[in-house]
This record gives sequence, C-alpha cells and structure tokens, in this order.
Amino acid sequence: MTPIFFLLAFLISTINSHVAAIDFCVADLKGAQTSVGYPCKLPKDVTVEDFVFSNFTVGTPNQFNFSLTPAIVDNFPALNGLGLSMARVELEEGAIIPMHTHVDATEVVIAGSGLGKYTTGFITSDNVVYIKTLVEGDIFVIPKGLLHFGFNAGEGKASGMAVFSSEKPSVQIVDLALFGNDLDSAIVEKTTFLDAEQVKKLKDLFKGSG
Amino acid sequence: MTPIFFLLAFLISTINSHVAAIDFCVADLKGAQTSVGYPCKLPKDVTVEDFVFSNFTVGTPNQFNFSLTPAIVDNFPALNGLGLSMARVELEEGAIIPMHTHVDATEVVIAGSGLGKYTTGFITSDNVVYIKTLVEGDIFVIPKGLLHFGFNAGEGKASGMAVFSSEKPSVQIVDLALFGNDLDSAIVEKTTFLDAEQVKKLKDLFKGSG
Amino acid sequence: MTPIFFLLAFLISTINSHVAAIDFCVADLKGAQTSVGYPCKLPKDVTVEDFVFSNFTVGTPNQFNFSLTPAIVDNFPALNGLGLSMARVELEEGAIIPMHTHVDATEVVIAGSGLGKYTTGFITSDNVVYIKTLVEGDIFVIPKGLLHFGFNAGEGKASGMAVFSSEKPSVQIVDLALFGNDLDSAIVEKTTFLDAEQVKKLKDLFKGSG
Amino acid sequence: MTPIFFLLAFLISTINSHVAAIDFCVADLKGAQTSVGYPCKLPKDVTVEDFVFSNFTVGTPNQFNFSLTPAIVDNFPALNGLGLSMARVELEEGAIIPMHTHVDATEVVIAGSGLGKYTTGFITSDNVVYIKTLVEGDIFVIPKGLLHFGFNAGEGKASGMAVFSSEKPSVQIVDLALFGNDLDSAIVEKTTFLDAEQVKKLKDLFKGSG
Amino acid sequence: MTPIFFLLAFLISTINSHVAAIDFCVADLKGAQTSVGYPCKLPKDVTVEDFVFSNFTVGTPNQFNFSLTPAIVDNFPALNGLGLSMARVELEEGAIIPMHTHVDATEVVIAGSGLGKYTTGFITSDNVVYIKTLVEGDIFVIPKGLLHFGFNAGEGKASGMAVFSSEKPSVQIVDLALFGNDLDSAIVEKTTFLDAEQVKKLKDLFKGSG
Amino acid sequence: MTPIFFLLAFLISTINSHVAAIDFCVADLKGAQTSVGYPCKLPKDVTVEDFVFSNFTVGTPNQFNFSLTPAIVDNFPALNGLGLSMARVELEEGAIIPMHTHVDATEVVIAGSGLGKYTTGFITSDNVVYIKTLVEGDIFVIPKGLLHFGFNAGEGKASGMAVFSSEKPSVQIVDLALFGNDLDSAIVEKTTFLDAEQVKKLKDLFKGSG
Repeated sequence: MTPIFFLLAFLISTINSHVAAIDFCVADLKGAQTSVGYPCKLPKDVTVEDFVFSNFTVGTPNQFNFSLTPAIVDNFPALNGLGLSMARVELEEGAIIPMHTHVDATEVVIAGSGLGKYTTGFITSDNVVYIKTLVEGDIFVIPKGLLHFGFNAGEGKASGMAVFSSEKPSVQIVDLALFGNDLDSAIVEKTTFLDAEQVKKLKDLFKGSG
Repeated sequence: MTPIFFLLAFLISTINSHVAAIDFCVADLKGAQTSVGYPCKLPKDVTVEDFVFSNFTVGTPNQFNFSLTPAIVDNFPALNGLGLSMARVELEEGAIIPMHTHVDATEVVIAGSGLGKYTTGFITSDNVVYIKTLVEGDIFVIPKGLLHFGFNAGEGKASGMAVFSSEKPSVQIVDLALFGNDLDSAIVEKTTFLDAEQVKKLKDLFKGSG
Repeated sequence: MTPIFFLLAFLISTINSHVAAIDFCVADLKGAQTSVGYPCKLPKDVTVEDFVFSNFTVGTPNQFNFSLTPAIVDNFPALNGLGLSMARVELEEGAIIPMHTHVDATEVVIAGSGLGKYTTGFITSDNVVYIKTLVEGDIFVIPKGLLHFGFNAGEGKASGMAVFSSEKPSVQIVDLALFGNDLDSAIVEKTTFLDAEQVKKLKDLFKGSG
Repeated sequence: MTPIFFLLAFLISTINSHVAAIDFCVADLKGAQTSVGYPCKLPKDVTVEDFVFSNFTVGTPNQFNFSLTPAIVDNFPALNGLGLSMARVELEEGAIIPMHTHVDATEVVIAGSGLGKYTTGFITSDNVVYIKTLVEGDIFVIPKGLLHFGFNAGEGKASGMAVFSSEKPSVQIVDLALFGNDLDSAIVEKTTFLDAEQVKKLKDLFKGSG
Repeated sequence: MTPIFFLLAFLISTINSHVAAIDFCVADLKGAQTSVGYPCKLPKDVTVEDFVFSNFTVGTPNQFNFSLTPAIVDNFPALNGLGLSMARVELEEGAIIPMHTHVDATEVVIAGSGLGKYTTGFITSDNVVYIKTLVEGDIFVIPKGLLHFGFNAGEGKASGMAVFSSEKPSVQIVDLALFGNDLDSAIVEKTTFLDAEQVKKLKDLFKGSG
Repeated sequence: MTPIFFLLAFLISTINSHVAAIDFCVADLKGAQTSVGYPCKLPKDVTVEDFVFSNFTVGTPNQFNFSLTPAIVDNFPALNGLGLSMARVELEEGAIIPMHTHVDATEVVIAGSGLGKYTTGFITSDNVVYIKTLVEGDIFVIPKGLLHFGFNAGEGKASGMAVFSSEKPSVQIVDLALFGNDLDSAIVEKTTFLDAEQVKKLKDLFKGSG
C-alpha cells in the first residue's frame, strides 16, 4: 500500500536526501555564517537532543547582584534561522542592569516571581521615557535598538525571562562602549559632553585606556 | 544649545510628526490588516501601558486539565510586526494537549516548575518522531508547521511557557479540523482511512455534523 | 567603441567574476544549505540546460490511482531562491489524495482536462471547510500550512498542476505522521482520541510500529 | 467537552474576530496598497469562491497570433501576499512574443501540447544568450528582470503556462517603452544608437509621438 | 497593431487601474503606516515631481558648527518601501557630531571636499573601536545600531553625505536620551555609573528635568 | 567590577567567538554565494580598513564622455548584506548614458556640481515617461527594473552620484543585450521589429555576431 506515499513523499525527497533540510535548519556552528545565520547541519546528524536546551535556570549572582542565562543560537543551534532567543534573569536585591541596547532585536520581558520590584524602562528616539515597575505576570516590550535599563527597586529578589526577536541578539552597554576600551578620552569627552574627570573615573572603573 | 539637536532630530522628524511611527508600530486593531499585520497606532496615542501586558498568569484548568493564557498581537498590540508571541500553559495531572500544528510559527517550549512530567513531541514531514520529557529548565523547539502534541506524564502539575515565531500563531487541531465541523463524513473517511464508525463517534464527540 | 560599456559593465563586474552570481543563483546541491536555500553554482558552470526541466509529464498511476511528478529545487536547481515549485498530478477514476499539509507553502491547483471531477478542499484553523469541485480552467488556492485533501469524484480521469510558494515544499500526510512510524500507540490514542483498535488497524496498514 | 478547545482556540482568537485574518489575506482591492500589496478582506466576507479563479483557458488569438490569459492579484485576489501568479499563453503558427522584461518577477514557462515549437530565451546582464526550443513537458526558468522573448518556430500551435514569482508581475515591452509614448525621438536615438529613420518608423508603428 | 500589446499589457492591468501601483509605491503620507511603511499614492496622482527632491544642499550651520539636510521618506515620499535615505552633512571647523545610534539603519558616509578632517568612528558590541579620518573620496560603513560619532579634526570645513539602509532612519543621541527628558536623575546615575553632579550638569545643559 | 559585564556579554558570546559575526557581515569574497550574498569574514580577520573604500572619485572619461566609479560588494565587501551600493558618475559635455535597466535595484541619483545639465528619465511598465533635467542638489529616484537613460544636455561637465538598493546591482544595457552577443539577427529582428539593416549596423558597432 505504500507506493502511493512514496510517490507523494517524493516531494520531501529522496532526490537529495543527504543534504536536504526541509522542516528545520539546525545550525552547523562550524560552517561559514551568512547575513542570515549559519548553514544547516545535515539532517542525518540531527537528533532529538538538538531541539533541547538544558539548564535554562538561575545562574550565580555577580557582584552587581544579578545573573543571566542566555539561550541563543550559539549555544542552542536549533534556534538558527528562527529570529528568536531568550535569557533568564535573576535580580538580587539592589541589582542594576546598566543602560544598554540590543542592536537588532526587540526584547520582551516576562516578570517572574519574587518579592523584589523589577523596574525597567526604555527611551525613544525622540527622547520620551517609558518606565514600568513590573509585577509577576507582567510582560513588557522594549522596542528594537533603543536604550533601556532595569533594576530591582524592591526588597527581596526579582526574576524574569527575556525573549528576543533575534537568534543572536547583540548587547551594547553604554559604559563599556565609552569607557571599557581604548577610545581616546578626548573623543569621549567631546562627543558626550562629559567632563574629563568623569571620563577618567569611569575609564578606571571599566578598565579602559586612552 | 539645543538647535543643533533639533537639526539632527529632524531625521526623527517634525515633518510628519502626526503620523510618524519610527521606533515601534503598536497595532491599531481597528485598522485594516495587510499580509504583514495591522497598521500602527498614531504615536500620540501610545502610552507606556501599550507596552505592558498584565496577568500573564495561570488560567483556570479546563476538564482536560490544562489552562492556556496567550499574549498575541490581538490582545497585546505592542507585538505588532515583531513576529513574536507567547502563551502560559499549566498542565494538571493527566492533562493532554491534542495533536495540532501552528500554521506559520515555530514554537519554543520552556518547561517550568512542577512535579508533573511535561512530555512533548513533534513529527517531521518524513515521519520521524522527536519526543522528550522535559524537566524544569529545559527548552524544546518545535519546528514550524509540524504536527505536535503534549501531555503530563507524571504525578502532580507541570507548567511551561510557549514562545512563537509569529505575533499571531494560528492553531489547527487535527480532531477539530476533521470532526468539529460539517465536513462530509464520507470525505473524512476516504482521505484519512478511518472507519465510518470511528468518524461518527468523533463527529459526535466534537459536535461536528455531515 | 566598447570601452564605455566595459566601464559601465564594471558594475556587473570583472572584479570577482569567478564567483559573482548576479542574475540568478542556480543551486549547488552539494553545497551546505542555509535557511534560505543552497549556495549558488559558479556562473562559469551554468549552461542553458540548468534552466530546463524535462519530462514534467504524466507519471505512472499507483494503486491509489494517481501519479505525481514534482519539479522542486532538489531536481530542478534553477528554482533555488525563487520560492516557487510545481508538480503534475494525474487522478485516475477513484483516486484519493489523503489529508495532508504543506508546512511552509501555499498551493495553487490548476485543473486540467479530463472527464473526472477533481474535488479539493481545505480546512481553516477555525475549522471552516472550503471545498470545490474544479472544472478544466479553474484555479484553486490552498492557503499555507492548512489541512487539505483531494479526490476524483467523477467518471474518467482528472488532471491538474500544482504550484507551490516554496522551492522545496514539504508534505506532511496525517496518516503517515500518526501511523507510519514508531510513535507509541498510546500517545496516538490520547492525543487524537482515536480508539485503540482503529490505531492498531492503521498502524498495520501504514507499516508503523509502537 | 469543547471548553478545552475553546481555550486553545483562543489563540486563533475571539479577541478580535471581526478583523482577524489568520490563515490567508484575500485582497480587498478597494483598500489602499502598500509596498507589500493590498489589505485583507474581512474574514467574514470571504467565501470559497474567493479561492477559485474560473476560465483560466485559451483566449482569442490576436493578429500576432497569440493569446494570453493572466491570473494575478488584481483579478484573483486570493493571490494577495503570495508572491505568485500565472498566465496561460497560446501561440498560433508564427506567433511572436516581443522582447520584454518582468520588472520584479522570475518567470517559469511550462510548455504544453501542440505541434508548434515554443522557442524562448533570455539575455543575462553580461550579455550571454540562453535560448531553448521547448517540447511538451519542458519547464524553463527566466530569471527576474532580464530581457527575454518567445516565438513559435514550428508548424501548428504551441501552448504554455507561465508562473511568476510575484502576484503582480509588471511587463515592460522594449518597443512600447521606446516607441509607444511621447519620449523625444532625439533621446531615443542617442540613448539606443538607432537611426532616426528607424525610430520614426517604429514610432509610427507603435503609435508613439515625439 | 496594438491589440496584441493591450492583451499583454493586461498583466499591468486595466483590471484595477485606479488603485494599481506596480512599478513604485510613492508614499501617501496621510495614510496609516504599517510596519513596512506608508500606503502608496494612487498612480493617477503621481507626477515626475514625486521622484525629485530639490535642494539637497548645504544647510545653515548651527552653533555646533555643522548642518544637516535629510532626504527621508517623510520629506521625499518616493523613498517609500526602498529601505534607503540620505543626508547632507557640512562640518565647520571644530564641529562635533555627538555619540548616537541609528536604530535600524546602517550608515554609509561618503567624504566630500574641504580642508577639514572628517573623523568618524563606531564601537562594536564587544567594545572594539573602529575610527578613521576620512579624506575626500573615502566611503566609510557604520554597521546598523552601533554607537558612533564624528568631528572635524582639521582646519577648514569638511563635508560629506550619509546614506542609510532605511527610508526612515531614527537617531538616538545618547546625551539627549539620558539628559534631555524627565528621566529620574537617580535612575540615570545608577544605570550609567555617572556622578550625580555630572548628571545634574548635563540635565541643565540639555534642558532635562527629573 | 567587570564580571557582571562578562556575564551580560555572554550574549555577544565567547561560546563561539571564532566564527561569531554579530554586528556586521563583511563579505568573504572567496566563499560560496547564496541568494542573500556572500558568507561573512571571520571577525578576527576584520580590521577598520574593511569598512573603508578609498578613491571613490572621478574616473577617466571614456570616448562617450563619461566615467563611472562603482563601490559595490565585490570591491567593497563591507556592503555585504546591506542591500546598498553606490557609484560616482562624471559626464563630460555630450556624454550619453545608454538605455538600460538595473535588474533588482532602485537607483537614486544625486546631482552634483558642474555647468552641464544632467538629464535623466525612466519609462514605466505602462509606457509613461518621467524625465527631468537635474540641477545641483536634486535627487531623482529611478524605480527598480525600469528602462532609464541619461545624458549631459548642457555646456560643461555634469556630475552625480548614484545609490542603489542592492549591494550588487546588475546592469542590462539594451544595445549590448541585443547587439553585443551572438543572438541570431533574425530573432532580434522579429522580437524587436527592427529592420535587418539596422540590426546589422548595430551588431557591427557592438561587436556582436549572429
């Protein structure tokens, strides 16, 4: 009775079965990237474990009192080509997420449990501030590319999950960009209008030179 | 000192400020949809609350022992144009999520807490089954458009969150498509190879006719 | 007189002529796929025959009384990157095309000649059935990803051509997905509400196990 | 038993059902076009006939001995957003399809029956000619935007079908562009290097002025 | 002789000529925006002047010693849907272009004439600085979304043109985002690690409050 | 103090740093092209010079009295994936830019200085001519794929810059396509309605055969 199905299934194809990815494109991280991501692993090399990312759990808090666990294409290749990734965030009391942007990704924050107060906000390109203290069960959208920040405004921990509209969201942290490299201090000063002393202090703090 | 910035800010533009959406496109749900979604609300009508979705929490379990709370463009207009949405799922003991597809969306399941065993799987177009019992902190990718299912295989509740690569993921449940409408039983039988009695029984169960 | 044109033609470029594909991207089927298809054959290796697919004609009917001849990127590499493919279908009297989906492709059916009655239909995600018996010269659109089916409702042969909005449309046949593999029968039963006996009967028919 | 499905079906959504197009976007031809096509008809106004185009058959031959029947978004609104359209072509003996381009669409020609010889070819941007006399059952790909032509080289009729990778393929016929309007003859001459007499003769033939 | 062409031209179509935009989609700036831009002006309302932007010339220098003249979709509607816009920039001696990002656009700078030294640079998301003093005839690419800056490092004027990979590039200037609005100073301090005094000074300078 | 940032920077990722391109995708011109361009150079091999194109200046006039200097992905790899390229054009007195199309790119012309009169125009697919004599500071949009031309109508030189909505715009010059290759003269004649003598004359001029 199968011949009919073999005929139909010809579309899903024995023609080129050694390379034919049809239903998914799990990243071959060793392959050359293009502007749309990684090449696909050969289907014969794909197993159920390729679709599973384990331990998307709470990380160890740093001295700034938060932890972050990302699941992005580079550590979860099944996300390749999906334009989707995520991260777990845990904010200890007093935690601060510094001012930053995600170059090509909108971020959706889903507030989790905790007695803390997860406060987050973004600034538009016409300089309007949208800020919100989230409670458990709130979702907040941070539009693509805009400066945003977060902190724990309460007593106790706060937690959340971030979803990004990119499988490989890059992060540009303003302080690191300005002070954590060898960008000439005089250039920082004139293009940010910060005082020389302030620049020097932050260059020291963020291990920059120049 | 500001004139310089007004000049630069001209790019973000007073030219057409009454309609100019630049940083986001919050859906005007009353506007006419196109193949890429809804038109944008006028920026002047956008407030911080547009970026917040509240009560993304546990719903009331149904008689199948699961609940589902979606956040999609139609109830959370800030998702417009993002190709992103999400749903909370709570599985009571014995819960079953019937065989279904999401027409144009990959689903990423993030297993939450609970003593239950959230088991989920999908079937590829060459009929290979990928199935996994998730533990808390597991993420599982269900590629776009493929038949998939879930159930709680353990004792106690299970929970999870689903993220979709579409702001408006449609759901096609096989049983409802076949038995929950007026599709002629004879056609169902011949195109599925199910027995007439079986079709009749399920037509009754799912309130279909024909 | 040509120098002028050589200068202009510099845009179409001697700079990198050994790799430069400009007007087309015929698939190199041996190259690594990405989420947008195959890499391009080197232009120097492309001939007119790459643009020709021969014998897009009637195949041999199977015991279900239909034949299918596909032209997709894997057997017609000129379709690479076009989001377009096609198939010839011939329905003998009594032919049945079983319930299935094309994961990421809309299908457009063009009814050909024959005394048969090519009947086809699809079911939307809100379970509405759209069904039509086509006559020669009818075109019918089956939206992307939805369950659909066909059969020859008349006396005599029917024929048609299908065009897909994908160069590599995958086919998921419900019966094969449920019964043609090792998916545990108990899972099939609980996620489809089919009786155990029915599942067993179809597992036997479609050579599945489990 | 249905409440569970209503909950699940919430994703396909009663929230906004009066405007919610999910599975398709049939064109509302009276709506304002965007760069991605027409807005969608309200789902409540969509019937099965929206998915059917009738009489995609042979037209009346013109004095150049061919006929053409198009099915594009403007006369078949179900094609909206699909990037797909088609046309029937019948070539009488001696028929000529003049040199032309389709601005934003690849064309796939499928040769039909007939004793004629459907010859077609295209010219690349580095001026290489690809030409082929098709026999019934041949498919030929004409890459996007390139100059191409066709004619019936045989004795008897030839027929074919064209599929375009655009739901609204535009046609630019070289002779009409140069001679069928009020473009100044002196400009035509200097930018094409044609003789003044030749330009005048073709301006007369194609009813141009200037 | 024209009937043949009318038949062929049917593809470009009298069917729906009052709304049919085929070759271009000049923005109707009064229409509702979608995530892909403005709706198209009716072709009958389009004239040659829609394709012309005049006075893309040097503006009046501001007190920061530069001028900027943009041509974007909001003042040049022919750019709608093209993903392309441009700006003229003139830098007087000592001019500074402050640290900023373009949310969704790569910028390509083309250095023009002048004795000045147009210096520009960007910082990647891993904090590497790429900086260059351009001479006339240099082109410099600033990748999408990254912090960048410019200044005239020489004696005499410098000039340039910027091309953006967006028809509506938004500009987010770090100083204005942090200090030119009512964002609470305490939040600015903790998320940027700037001193309170510095924040106050710049809030005053950029007319912010909070 | 840095550990926090290393954690955050994990998103931009040490996981796969030897291949991870995030902020840009400078073309590896030796890599295999796909339908979306070249693979990315490894970030470790990228320097500031990759973002700089030098000598985008006036070329040597040819006997048709114009010069053209392109900056496209093949000679400026930083443009890879941007959908953007540019060319400098200098028109001596009497210069002619012959009738041509850019297959998949809109062209934006920016008129520069000079006493000449840069005249340019395009023809739509319904044969309407849009023509304009530009003055310095005019921008003119030539929609994708349409036939267009240019010439210097004045006394003295004219200059301009062209921006293309493609990183690799191909050029199809009508005369070269028809007369600069081995396309059979009889085919040229019948598909263009040109006289045999005219075809022969231009075949000679453009070094064609056939």
